[in-house]
Amino acid sequence: MCELLGMSANVPTDIVFSFTGFRMRGGKRAPHKDGWGIAFYEGKGLRVFRDATPSAESQISHFVRSYPIKSTIVLSHIRRASVGRVALENTHPFVRELWGRFWVFAHNGRVAEVRKRPLGAYLPVGTTDSEHAFCWILEELRRAFPKPPEQPGACWPRLHEMFTDLSGLGTFNVLLSEGEFLYAFADTRLHWIERKAPFSRAQLIDEDLEVDFSQETTPTDRVAVIATTPLTSNETWTRCGTDEFAVFREGERIA
Amino acid sequence: MCELLGMSANVPTDIVFSFTGFRMRGGKRAPHKDGWGIAFYEGKGLRVFRDATPSAESQISHFVRSYPIKSTIVLSHIRRASVGRVALENTHPFVRELWGRFWVFAHNGRVAEVRKRPLGAYLPVGTTDSEHAFCWILEELRRAFPKPPEQPGACWPRLHEMFTDLSGLGTFNVLLSEGEFLYAFADTRLHWIERKAPFSRAQLIDEDLEVDFSQETTPTDRVAVIATTPLTSNETWTRCGTDEFAVFREGERIA
Repeated sequence: MCELLGMSANVPTDIVFSFTGFRMRGGKRAPHKDGWGIAFYEGKGLRVFRDATPSAESQISHFVRSYPIKSTIVLSHIRRASVGRVALENTHPFVRELWGRFWVFAHNGRVAEVRKRPLGAYLPVGTTDSEHAFCWILEELRRAFPKPPEQPGACWPRLHEMFTDLSGLGTFNVLLSEGEFLYAFADTRLHWIERKAPFSRAQLIDEDLEVDFSQETTPTDRVAVIATTPLTSNETWTRCGTDEFAVFREGERIA
Repeated sequence: MCELLGMSANVPTDIVFSFTGFRMRGGKRAPHKDGWGIAFYEGKGLRVFRDATPSAESQISHFVRSYPIKSTIVLSHIRRASVGRVALENTHPFVRELWGRFWVFAHNGRVAEVRKRPLGAYLPVGTTDSEHAFCWILEELRRAFPKPPEQPGACWPRLHEMFTDLSGLGTFNVLLSEGEFLYAFADTRLHWIERKAPFSRAQLIDEDLEVDFSQETTPTDRVAVIATTPLTSNETWTRCGTDEFAVFREGERIA
């Protein structure tokens, strides 16, 4: 299996604190040592860093941890290979363009049977079930909406339906974004937290590191963090229910 | 305008030496200060680093220079904005998937009129003429070959034709790859060099740095480097002719 990390913020925010703990689960504090990746949106632009080595050791992950990149939406994934060998092309998050937007997808779980579903214009480059599922989702979205829907929310019921459908094939915890909204789907395990004023201190579980958010924020800042399991020991994370679909925007859960 | 750098090698090779000189043209030794990017293939997998800041100063470019990533195909670009504002989404190289392969594209020049050409499944995320041209090329390829051609060379005449067509709209020097072949098209300015045994010393033009390739290679290594203008002062680079189309594979020009 794998672990997921997502962030949505109302002002460009770095994810150094959360990523410092999260990366230790890639081969050190947890056995997800088969690669990792992280995607940062900057407006419509996108940066992705990834490596097929353990995130706890990867020099690129060390760079990401030490270089604060400010972003309003971040998705990250550490991998414990189930379907597909350890290789760069099998490393999440996966990226494709739809409607002139980059879509980013990361999956925790296993839905091997999805590979029997026929695809269209989007084809996997690697051999994971996850990338196949992503290609299938985007093709279905494009069929349902050949042009971008005028109301972004118009595609949410179809997304929720597809996620629920795929979770029936196995385990399907997911983060997905197109740069404006961060979608999360919980099949078996996903937690989230909203941080806003008054900010307080937070203590990482996986590293001996504490931060005082009140020193690093302004009163109107708002950040939501989503993770497979809580990253901090002294805050209250909300556990998602089975087949729960959540939409985050600007640091807030809006649906 | 901008500058291009490409590499094709028969064994995974780092591009640190060439990139050390090239990156200095992004705001220091030359005025291409509006962003830069570099893509590394590892098999079918791909890593891309990019930044909308000058490559001579960017911390990410500094990291790429100091961290040797071994690859058989590399494409890099430093930007001087003409069409499209300075932003991450307007930074080359651009990436899309076709036939289950990542295609990477970088352009030096200006073909503003290309934006009148209708597109299909691939849409630009940013506002450059270059990304529009890339989307148009991929759509045309997919129309001509709905499935990947059994002989990869089958699509080369169509590629050459499209490149020549687009060069008629302005200036169109290009690097393109799908991970196996590196395609170069010279409209006005592109140089290339093949390095193989016996290897000798090379001296960068843009930085005070010399390397003795005979100390860093084995006798069967072969590397081709393509650049807008020569990167070294003591080697003989070949200048491409107008509308010249070149195909590189495993460090060798094969067409």
